[in-house]
Amino acid sequence: MPIVPPGTTTVKHHDNKYKVIGTRPVRHDGADKVTGRAKYGADTQLSGMLYGYILRSPHAHANIKSIDTSAAEAVPGVYAVIAGKDFPHVGDKVAELGEGSVRLAHLSANCMARGKVLYHGHPVAAVAAETIHIAEEAAKLIKIEYEQLPPVLDVLEAMEPTAPVLNDDVFTEEMGQQVSEKPSNVATHFLYEIGDPEAAFATADVVVEREFRNATVHQGYIEPHASTALYHGDGRVTLWTCTQGSFSSRQQVAELLEIPLTWIKVIPTEIGGGFGGKIAVYEAPVSVALSKKAGRPVRVVMDRTGVFLATGPTPATFIRVKLGATKDGKLVAGQAWLAYEAGAFPGSPVNPGCMCVFSCYDIPNARVDGYDVCVNKPRTNAYRAPGSPNAAFACETVLEEVCQELGMDSMEFRLKNAAKEGTRRSDGYVYPRVGLVECLEAVKNSDHYKTPLKGPNQGRGLAAGFWFNIGLKSSVTATINTDGKVSLVEGSTDIGGTRTSISMQLAEVLGIPAEDVQPFVVDTDSVGYTDITGGSRVTMATGMAAYKAALELRDLCCERAARIWECDVNEVRYHDDATITGPEGKVLTLKALAAQIVATGESITASGNTNMPNSSNAFGVHLVDVEVDPDTGKTTVLRYTACQDVGTAIHPAYVEGQMHGGAVQGIGWALNEEYVYDKDGHMRNANFLDYRIPTCYDVPNIETIIVEVPNPDHPFGVRGVGEVPICPPQAAIGAAIHGATGKRMYELPMSPPRLLHELLKG
Amino acid sequence: MPIVPPGTTTVKHHDNKYKVIGTRPVRHDGADKVTGRAKYGADTQLSGMLYGYILRSPHAHANIKSIDTSAAEAVPGVYAVIAGKDFPHVGDKVAELGEGSVRLAHLSANCMARGKVLYHGHPVAAVAAETIHIAEEAAKLIKIEYEQLPPVLDVLEAMEPTAPVLNDDVFTEEMGQQVSEKPSNVATHFLYEIGDPEAAFATADVVVEREFRNATVHQGYIEPHASTALYHGDGRVTLWTCTQGSFSSRQQVAELLEIPLTWIKVIPTEIGGGFGGKIAVYEAPVSVALSKKAGRPVRVVMDRTGVFLATGPTPATFIRVKLGATKDGKLVAGQAWLAYEAGAFPGSPVNPGCMCVFSCYDIPNARVDGYDVCVNKPRTNAYRAPGSPNAAFACETVLEEVCQELGMDSMEFRLKNAAKEGTRRSDGYVYPRVGLVECLEAVKNSDHYKTPLKGPNQGRGLAAGFWFNIGLKSSVTATINTDGKVSLVEGSTDIGGTRTSISMQLAEVLGIPAEDVQPFVVDTDSVGYTDITGGSRVTMATGMAAYKAALELRDLCCERAARIWECDVNEVRYHDDATITGPEGKVLTLKALAAQIVATGESITASGNTNMPNSSNAFGVHLVDVEVDPDTGKTTVLRYTACQDVGTAIHPAYVEGQMHGGAVQGIGWALNEEYVYDKDGHMRNANFLDYRIPTCYDVPNIETIIVEVPNPDHPFGVRGVGEVPICPPQAAIGAAIHGATGKRMYELPMSPPRLLHELLKG
Repeated sequence: MPIVPPGTTTVKHHDNKYKVIGTRPVRHDGADKVTGRAKYGADTQLSGMLYGYILRSPHAHANIKSIDTSAAEAVPGVYAVIAGKDFPHVGDKVAELGEGSVRLAHLSANCMARGKVLYHGHPVAAVAAETIHIAEEAAKLIKIEYEQLPPVLDVLEAMEPTAPVLNDDVFTEEMGQQVSEKPSNVATHFLYEIGDPEAAFATADVVVEREFRNATVHQGYIEPHASTALYHGDGRVTLWTCTQGSFSSRQQVAELLEIPLTWIKVIPTEIGGGFGGKIAVYEAPVSVALSKKAGRPVRVVMDRTGVFLATGPTPATFIRVKLGATKDGKLVAGQAWLAYEAGAFPGSPVNPGCMCVFSCYDIPNARVDGYDVCVNKPRTNAYRAPGSPNAAFACETVLEEVCQELGMDSMEFRLKNAAKEGTRRSDGYVYPRVGLVECLEAVKNSDHYKTPLKGPNQGRGLAAGFWFNIGLKSSVTATINTDGKVSLVEGSTDIGGTRTSISMQLAEVLGIPAEDVQPFVVDTDSVGYTDITGGSRVTMATGMAAYKAALELRDLCCERAARIWECDVNEVRYHDDATITGPEGKVLTLKALAAQIVATGESITASGNTNMPNSSNAFGVHLVDVEVDPDTGKTTVLRYTACQDVGTAIHPAYVEGQMHGGAVQGIGWALNEEYVYDKDGHMRNANFLDYRIPTCYDVPNIETIIVEVPNPDHPFGVRGVGEVPICPPQAAIGAAIHGATGKRMYELPMSPPRLLHELLKG
Repeated sequence: MPIVPPGTTTVKHHDNKYKVIGTRPVRHDGADKVTGRAKYGADTQLSGMLYGYILRSPHAHANIKSIDTSAAEAVPGVYAVIAGKDFPHVGDKVAELGEGSVRLAHLSANCMARGKVLYHGHPVAAVAAETIHIAEEAAKLIKIEYEQLPPVLDVLEAMEPTAPVLNDDVFTEEMGQQVSEKPSNVATHFLYEIGDPEAAFATADVVVEREFRNATVHQGYIEPHASTALYHGDGRVTLWTCTQGSFSSRQQVAELLEIPLTWIKVIPTEIGGGFGGKIAVYEAPVSVALSKKAGRPVRVVMDRTGVFLATGPTPATFIRVKLGATKDGKLVAGQAWLAYEAGAFPGSPVNPGCMCVFSCYDIPNARVDGYDVCVNKPRTNAYRAPGSPNAAFACETVLEEVCQELGMDSMEFRLKNAAKEGTRRSDGYVYPRVGLVECLEAVKNSDHYKTPLKGPNQGRGLAAGFWFNIGLKSSVTATINTDGKVSLVEGSTDIGGTRTSISMQLAEVLGIPAEDVQPFVVDTDSVGYTDITGGSRVTMATGMAAYKAALELRDLCCERAARIWECDVNEVRYHDDATITGPEGKVLTLKALAAQIVATGESITASGNTNMPNSSNAFGVHLVDVEVDPDTGKTTVLRYTACQDVGTAIHPAYVEGQMHGGAVQGIGWALNEEYVYDKDGHMRNANFLDYRIPTCYDVPNIETIIVEVPNPDHPFGVRGVGEVPICPPQAAIGAAIHGATGKRMYELPMSPPRLLHELLKG
């Protein structure tokens, strides 16, 4: 019996009847994961395997004058020592990472410093040895001469013309044109404009403009990055790695190490969380380079400190938002100025931030400027709806203040201004059928919304959030076994239960239970090209591939039945109850047909390959009650409701899980999480004791309201789920804290010391 | 540059022009295998893995009165001890093994004795422990009370009504009917008859009848059997094993342990030889049962003694053959009586022996009787053309004596009587186009045949041989990568280079180099149902699957080009030089199209599934010169030519390799190899020192003549290659010994002591 958590509601805006979709089968990989059988990145073992250790820069900004690895190489048990010189000089091509992109040369220098180090923890050398202890001790013997340079750690300071410049090869680009003569920390200036915002602001009755800051925040996935490489005798490579995209990892390693693409086989292990942070490669090319030099397989497992210091958190940002509305509560103009820290190399998610900042509302006149800015911190990467939560915090908070000034209820204001079918976003995109209004109404109708607050120092906050959800390419291959069960081979690594959500779609088409599908995530040679697990795309796009494969399996079953019955295939039909009928009342169940497959001919196998359009446009609305301790500034979340238009919920428990997880990550982001740097650019809290993510004691049960407004581009209406729920929490909690304390917070995290500081101002 | 060994000739009876087929590319798995990177059965490593040890019976025939495992279980480091009681009582269903079949109850009792032991080495218990040493020591503490029974070790003795009967549940069957009232060692009596042999013998001018004996012989594959099982928390099983058939292993383990078929994933490792001996399971279900009980993964690796004692050698046999011919050299009648030792449980290859005994010749009147007989030796299994070499030794030797009596050259006699298109075999089958006459002519035209013998004590022998070659089911899935290389996933484990021979057929269709195909042998969930690697079927049948997949890839490329060019797909053509042309002179190479796959849509992936007809009918003719040392009886092979109709040779080097290997195994079988038993049924030479297989010092360079008479059932004319070349050597060497010494040998091996014994008779 599936367990449905308390506080779970579904509001359907369709009347589709499904047999499998919408149920809650046990996940196929569940037993392995709860019994410790599942193999994660660090579990790979090979005979003769060596252990790799990455030596990291102690400085935030320095030139490397020399590296002497001879003493390390002389240590007994050491098989290889590598540094930047062991990596090819790759060209200026851009590597697409699925969510974002990066110049290859920068990706390479991020994996192993070349000439200079750009952040505390930047890899400078690596050692492969018989034990990790030998490798670590040997690494201490590597002599590196640094010339320290002043670091720049703040996005606004980095934009100053006098700021230390990180990269000689970065010039400012605007609309595809280079606009700076000298190297600059500002890599790109993005610009979007619709209507006439200046004129529109002039017509507004209320205009509010505020500035917001957001700390660097890490995804905090449980599993550190781990790769094991086997460089074969003929130059081919097998790479076991925990990655969100096996094909993306293959492409990156191929390009970084100049290995022919198909000489690399990436075998994805189980993955203990990614949230966007396991798309770009870090230790993977290092493990390959070590294996090549050592002539033995090499496993490189990051420790938690390495993960914090040198993987891709989401950027600290500075955002200025201005909104103008008329007295009758209509938004008429918006303006946003966003500067996102890229970290050491360009590529922050400021562009999606620009596109998301006003994405929830119909604002006919808007201008958005965005800046991608290098600072001496690790290169940022995607984190769940990358760029959107920062922008949502700013926009939603200003919107609350507009409502406050108008004296208008912010729910009513949102309902009045919510994006809907036909709304043009500030980047020009016009929405098809979307479900924001339905979400607002669902929250408005909720028990939570209708239940008043009960005590002092309490407040309630409401906020909306948006994410595009991408489509892209997915492939599966499915085979009907003789026992009637279907083996389903897929290219999407499974982070959030997608083995099951994809299997359910195959099962729905074939009319069989989800349990009769056996899903397997396979390597890059064993399935067609599949884009990353990210962008909330997998259940939608890989589900679509499974849908296509299932339709072909139905056809093949009809062909086989026609062969058995010696009749024309046009007389045979596959029915939704998994029976096949033919002329003269002939009938076979799928199981009965399957039992005859081997006896009657070749295997029944079908590949489904798809390329889904971007985007499926998903909105969420969160409602939160908090209580603030006036003596400590500590905010306790009392009640939390996450509502979201998910299209069709294939497996409601995983949809709820994504909504729970996103909300909890948003709560941590809102209240506690931040990278703490000293003035020299040393990160001072690179561990889970000092970097404070929420525990189960910090959050209440997250109530969920699933709103189903089917995606018109998908046969089952799936929209994707995972990213939206991290967008509203920051602003919702900010509004709730305002309700509880009267204080508007403009900087994240709204941690006890920061809030107490505001409270003490009186 | 491919290296072509000396003495290599090809005679083509077709004028097909191929670009890839017939070339000698480096095998895809070559570098891994020569550098020790390839992972064989014993290389599997898992965290927490235990080591399994199988305790074997010291007796050839005994009842098990009791088994007490308590002392073994108490040993620190022991996690599980199992015996027969830990295996389910499976029903009487027959398990198809691809080459042969076995009752499930017998297969189960062969893996772990139930109630009684039937041969020296029969598994009686197994232990899983932290180290193999602990397991082995603990096994010594298992107390087993045996009641010894008299063993029967000879096929004729076992057929006597007074012989000890091995199995209570075996009764004699004849034409599907039970014909014995009591349990019997004779499991089956096969009978074939065409024409009127009795009348025909009466018309013959010469009739020769002789009796032949053949020792038990082992395949002698380099790699011992090895399986590693992981019994998951939910009852699913992952099984790494070196097997000739991953789907067959899955089926056997599922049925033996009553696990749902698709709960088992078999991951085939590399395999160091099989020759038919790695089809039935031995240690695989033991490893699974141990893992289930221990709750940890368990690896079971046989040692060489275990392999000899308790896997499936080819049977010792007794054969009587009578041939009748007319003065003008026409065979008119044949009669054969074959008794094959099944070993402990029924299932010897006597039936194919019956079908093969007269298969090379047009004998219009023939009768063949075959008996499958249990004896107290390990259960026999397939070994390269199972059953045929024993029969060929008998028939070809009698044929030589007929020629001797007729005073006729045996080459001319064979040419006159050779099976050809339209010849009806004694089992009733009528041959389609076959190539025996072409082989005889090719040998007749060879330098070897035309070069006279040079010294004393030398002799020359000629013999023919036949094997059916099976077809059956194969599946592949192929994906075009963005660099134009094609990933080819296949279900056939690769023993003799089939990754390459299959890739070459895909490459031929696509018009690309073999090196641009990347073949991968995958697990049972990642590809469609595929029968065993055996019966010389893989290059033919899995090649056919690749052929079908390649045709679909061509279509998909045309579709994609049409999408790119925005034209009708009917205007697009894929050409054999891997270019795609469209309207208005548009042209794309496959590589150029491949580079656009990701940009223009979904993955280009195709599955090919096939079910090929049996059989492709292959013949070989071998010519051998020997010199016999009259003082020791030692036979030295001076020159050896193996000629064979292979259909079309896809990769001639592997064809030659199969011909070399078969000939060498046949030489060992002819001259040295045999199981030596004492009177109590203990095998006395269960190791490679005492069981004498040929080394490189024992054999000359094997010259090869490839004859290509294309198989009409295959698009490239492939017939299969691997088994035929083990059939002629025994008789050819026997004839050569006769030429050198004047002695006809009727018992194998014709080892120095046995030959010396004959020579000393004078």
